[in-house]
Order: sequence, then C-alpha cells, then structure tokens
Amino acid sequence: MTEGTVVTEGRFAPIDHAARIRVIQSMLARGGHGCDALFVTDLVDIRWLTGFTGSNAQVVVRRDDVALYTDGRYGERALAETAGSGARIVAESQRARLDERVDAELASATCVGVDDRSVSHAEWGRLASRFAVAPLASLVKVQRQVKDAAEVERIAAAAAAADAALAEVEPILMGTVDDPVTEADVRTELEYRMRLHGADDRSYDTIVASGPEHAARPHHEPTRRTIVDGDTVIIDVGGLVDGYHSDMTRSYVIGDATGEQADLYDLVDRSYRAGVDALRPGVDAAAVDAAARRVFVDAGYGDWYLHGTGHGVGLEIHESPFHSSASLEAIHAGNVVTIEPGLYRVGFGGLRIEDLFVVRDDGPQRLTHTVTHTPTR
Amino acid sequence: MTEGTVVTEGRFAPIDHAARIRVIQSMLARGGHGCDALFVTDLVDIRWLTGFTGSNAQVVVRRDDVALYTDGRYGERALAETAGSGARIVAESQRARLDERVDAELASATCVGVDDRSVSHAEWGRLASRFAVAPLASLVKVQRQVKDAAEVERIAAAAAAADAALAEVEPILMGTVDDPVTEADVRTELEYRMRLHGADDRSYDTIVASGPEHAARPHHEPTRRTIVDGDTVIIDVGGLVDGYHSDMTRSYVIGDATGEQADLYDLVDRSYRAGVDALRPGVDAAAVDAAARRVFVDAGYGDWYLHGTGHGVGLEIHESPFHSSASLEAIHAGNVVTIEPGLYRVGFGGLRIEDLFVVRDDGPQRLTHTVTHTPTR
Repeated sequence: MTEGTVVTEGRFAPIDHAARIRVIQSMLARGGHGCDALFVTDLVDIRWLTGFTGSNAQVVVRRDDVALYTDGRYGERALAETAGSGARIVAESQRARLDERVDAELASATCVGVDDRSVSHAEWGRLASRFAVAPLASLVKVQRQVKDAAEVERIAAAAAAADAALAEVEPILMGTVDDPVTEADVRTELEYRMRLHGADDRSYDTIVASGPEHAARPHHEPTRRTIVDGDTVIIDVGGLVDGYHSDMTRSYVIGDATGEQADLYDLVDRSYRAGVDALRPGVDAAAVDAAARRVFVDAGYGDWYLHGTGHGVGLEIHESPFHSSASLEAIHAGNVVTIEPGLYRVGFGGLRIEDLFVVRDDGPQRLTHTVTHTPTR
Repeated sequence: MTEGTVVTEGRFAPIDHAARIRVIQSMLARGGHGCDALFVTDLVDIRWLTGFTGSNAQVVVRRDDVALYTDGRYGERALAETAGSGARIVAESQRARLDERVDAELASATCVGVDDRSVSHAEWGRLASRFAVAPLASLVKVQRQVKDAAEVERIAAAAAAADAALAEVEPILMGTVDDPVTEADVRTELEYRMRLHGADDRSYDTIVASGPEHAARPHHEPTRRTIVDGDTVIIDVGGLVDGYHSDMTRSYVIGDATGEQADLYDLVDRSYRAGVDALRPGVDAAAVDAAARRVFVDAGYGDWYLHGTGHGVGLEIHESPFHSSASLEAIHAGNVVTIEPGLYRVGFGGLRIEDLFVVRDDGPQRLTHTVTHTPTR
C-alpha cells in the first residue's frame, strides 16, 4: 500500500472488496443470467467492487478470476487501491493494446453480460463486434443498495462534517440583516468548512436558495443575491468521505416568520414525519412517497410539491432505491436513504426538510443531526 | 430574466444562443445528414445551445423551431436561462407525460438524429421504439470546438481566479519546511480562494501531488501527506466561471533542487516550448503531441511521459480537440487548448508544466499567467 490511500487510514474499518467480488462471482456462478463473464464499465460499480478510484477502468469478472484494465496513468494507483481485492491489474498506455488484452481474456467466454444502461449505444456496437455481449442489469448496483457497517461509518462521518460546518455558518446566515451575506458566500463557507471538519469534499453542489424566487426552485444554484429580512432560505448540503456521500436540508426564515411561513414550515415538518414513519424494511418505496405527499395534498398544497420524497445515498448521491410516486422499488434493511419533502411557490419562496437515515429492522436510524430553530410567528 | 442569472450579470458579454441555434438549424436544413430533426440529450450540448444549466433536459431542434423538455423542478429556471435563445419550454412533472409531448413533437419527423455516443444502449432502444432514430455525431460538439469572444472572456476570468489563488497559496506551500502543510491543505486553500477571487467553483478536482510516489502519478488526488523538503510538487488547478473551465499546472521543488530535479525541470520546459511552437491553425493535433514528445524521447525519457500533450477546454474540462499520438483531429483558430508535458517516475516524483491557450491565426495567446520560480541547483 502506498501513501495514496492514507486519507482514511485508521479512521474507518477497512472495506472488504474480496468479499464483494465473491458475492458477484457466486451470482454469476448460479448461472441465472446465462453469462459466464461480466464486463463492468461503470466507474462507481468498479470502485465498489475493487476500490479503484481512477477515471478510466474496465473490469472483467469470471467465476474464478477478476481483472481490472486501465491506462498507463493509473497502473501504480490501481495496484495500491485494489490490493485487498484480489483483482489482477492490467495497465496499457495504448487504447488498442488494452482492447486486445480484454478481447484475449473474453475470447473464451460464451456470453459476456454488460449493463446496457451504463454503455453508450455506440460503445455497445463496438463491444458487440468484439465478443458475445448480452444486456444484463448491473448485478453490482443491486448489491450496492444494501450498505455494510464500514459504509455507514463513512456516510455518518460525511454527515458529521456537514453538521459541523452548518453549525458554524448558521450564525453568519442569520446575521445577514446586520452583516449582509450572499447565497454564494454561505455556500463557499459551508464547502470550505466541511473540509476543515474532515470531509474530503462536498457531496454535491451545495444549494443555498433564498427569497421569493430562488427558494421556489428545488435545485437552485447559489448566486450573488444578498439574503435579506423576510426571506425563506433553503440550505441543502452534504459531505464526501472516502467516496461516500451525505445529504441534508435545513430551511430558515430570516427575521420574524409570517403566519404563512410558520404554518407552511409546520406542514413540511408534518410531511417529513409522515415519510419517516413510513420508512421501514419491506415497504414499497412509492408508499413512502405517498405518506409524505398525502399530508400536502390533504392541506391543499399538493401542487407545491415538485419532486419525489427521497432516494438512496452511497457512492453516488442519487442511487436506488428512489421513493417517488412512480417507483417500483422496495425499501430494504441496510438502505441509506433521504426523506426530503418541500413546498415551493414563486412569490412565497420555499421550505424543505431533509434527513438521511439507515433503514434498520426496528426502524430508521438518523445520520444527520443539525438542530434548527423552527420558524415561529 | 430572474435573479437566477445574476452571477455573471454585467461581468461578461452575453452569449448569443439564438445565433448558435440558427447555425445548427442551417446545418440541419442543408440536409447532409438526411434528418429533419435533432434530439439532443447531452446536457453540455444543451447548455451551449440554449443556456439551460439544469440536470434534466432534452432538446428537439427542427429547421424552424427549438423546444426544450424538462421536469417540474426546472420549469422556472429553464424559462429564465433560455430567454434569449428562442427555445420553447415544455415542463412536465411526470416522465410519461413528458415522453408523450416529445413523441407528439417528433411524430411528423421522417428521421431524428441522435448522438449515439451520448445515449446509453438501453435508452437508444427506448427512443427507437418511439420514433425513427438515426445515429448522428453531435453537430453541436463540432461547433463547440471553436470559441467565440464571449467564451474566451469567461475562460480567461476562470484562469485569472486560479492565478490569483495560486499566488496566495505558493508561499504557504514553499513554507512547509517551517510550517508543515499537507497536500489536502494546499488543495482546500486553492479551491476556497479561487471563489474569493471570482470563480463560481473549481474547474475540476485540484491535483496537489508531492514527493517520490504521489508526484509520479499524473492524476493523483490530494491526501493528508505532509509536503517535505526535497519533494517535487505538481499543482494542477483551474477555475470555473459561468460554466467555462480553465486549466493550469505548475511544478515546484521544496528547498534546493538537486541536479536531476533541475535538469528534468529544464527538459519539461523545453518540451512545453516545443508544444507551444507547434500549436497553430491547420496542424494535426497529433503533430502538436509529437513535437513535445520528441524532446523527451531524444533525451531518453520517452517512457517517463505517461499521457497526451493536451486537450480542448470549454464547457467541459476535457473536450475536442485532443492532441495525443493517436488523435485524428486538427487544430483550428478559436480552439482553446492546453499544452501540458510532464515526466513521472516513482522514486523521483514528477514535474509538469501546463498552460491554456486560445489559438489565433498569428499564434497561440496564453490565458494562464502564473509565474513560477524555476528550480535551480
């Protein structure tokens, strides 16, 4: 192991990539998909499977072997990062030579499973001209949905960095009436301070959305707008630790809340609690969405709710399961998911409450812990 | 126009999206590709064409019409951002309903061109079941290679933010012998200060690679390794302004350079100059790579050079033209490209020099301006 993996050394339990590979190999060996090789091209799947974090790799999984193919830039790094996985590393600087090595490896396979959602149509044609491909939904993505203790530990650390940064930045935000700050100022300080509190990075582009127009956009990007008295403000912020994301949203009213602001904050809070109450192993993801949504619909605010109620979080900030009304997925123990209802209307602004939970057999365990003062009249 | 576009208001010349759409429509009207509609799904292409910056959109270009389809989260933002483009906005919260609207629009097209490198194989199958698709390399990507004055202005501002941040951080780096800093510390300060100097964000994950192992990896990610006397250090940093990227690398020796360090820095500098001298309109991109590479090969260091000599920069950090030995592309006036030779060897570390240029008829104009003290014996 080189110094390249020092970032997390000693901070967290190691991730057992060899065990993950064995699970995928046993899925392959059970032969349910008729393929005797997997060609994995999605870089997140590759990271989960082997530990490799570079930007160029392809992995071939056979029943008794795993090989990672990459280019000359990443030879050293691949060896260091995948040391515990048992993967063979093949590094070639020339693309043509790399392809030859892959083709030689796959010449003996009767069927090579490829995730047709991760590969472009043009690339699919290129692969099909080289070996016998079959579309196969990613076995790795299925496994990725259930997090082990080592993963939850990293996600919790990412959430803690966001909690610590927001605790420092909240007073700056609430002080904007006396010492004006912009959305971008708040964003810049949050992302800087998450790193000072141990995050490798932000989890996603931080949202700081203020006032009657910006806060009405669920995915607003921070601008140089100064935050002023009377604004609703939505802050959606998460940290990144060893590749794992966190996700949290808090909403504020600058100065004294109006009756409408306080009432709608209470309504969002009730929707949030209904979503959390519905979150347990075995339920349909759509039922979690329905529970949170019903609170808004019953209050006559159904058309102020512009998105789904949550999503899985892990090596990607948005991953399965997704709890929207159209979801066909289910919630399982070990899922790490958000609950994040919100209300948006140009003129009013917006309010959203979001926490991150690991789903346990006995109910959801919260990973985000920032306490915010509820707006009151 | 809402406040959402305030970030760049008044700072830069406006981008004329309507003119860009007319160019693509005229390419379509010339009929060379046999298609009477384009279905654009690549979000960077969509941003270049219309100004829309959200994370979900599809654009249909007809000879006399342009429509942007997005979901309910982005209706307001799409209207604001694309106001100057002439695009019609269609926002639907339900995916099925959005698809119906697209299908209705394309029912009358005899052939719909789709970039088969931007669409997954699974998605291609879904589109092909709905309307008459034909694979068509992106007309937008071809146009994106040549930057107009408004784009160069933004890229230059992004480069200036990186110059200003690095000027502040260089003394912190060089002072590590007395006041130790880690790679991650240097990275965190650079990215924070770029924003204080006007960047919206970093252009890419900043590289700070130090010492005999890390600096030997061209794409190293910063760790908590403390930078020490005798290290070679590679800093690869760029800013992001209104979606446009910059890219620059500087290399350092901490303390007094050894003879080998000084000699190899000179060698990288000579390779860099050869690459810049070769950079002019009309040449093959591969010839630019060959000019820089030859300096290393002639000195016996060919196998220390692990990557291509440069790439285009714009709304993406890596875009055409790519100047590698395998490139089939050419350099054109208006391209914004890097020249970035380097040498890497575990045990020695690494050195890279990279600047960003806009290619003019009378030669390359440099956009990155940081002056670094060359290591000397």
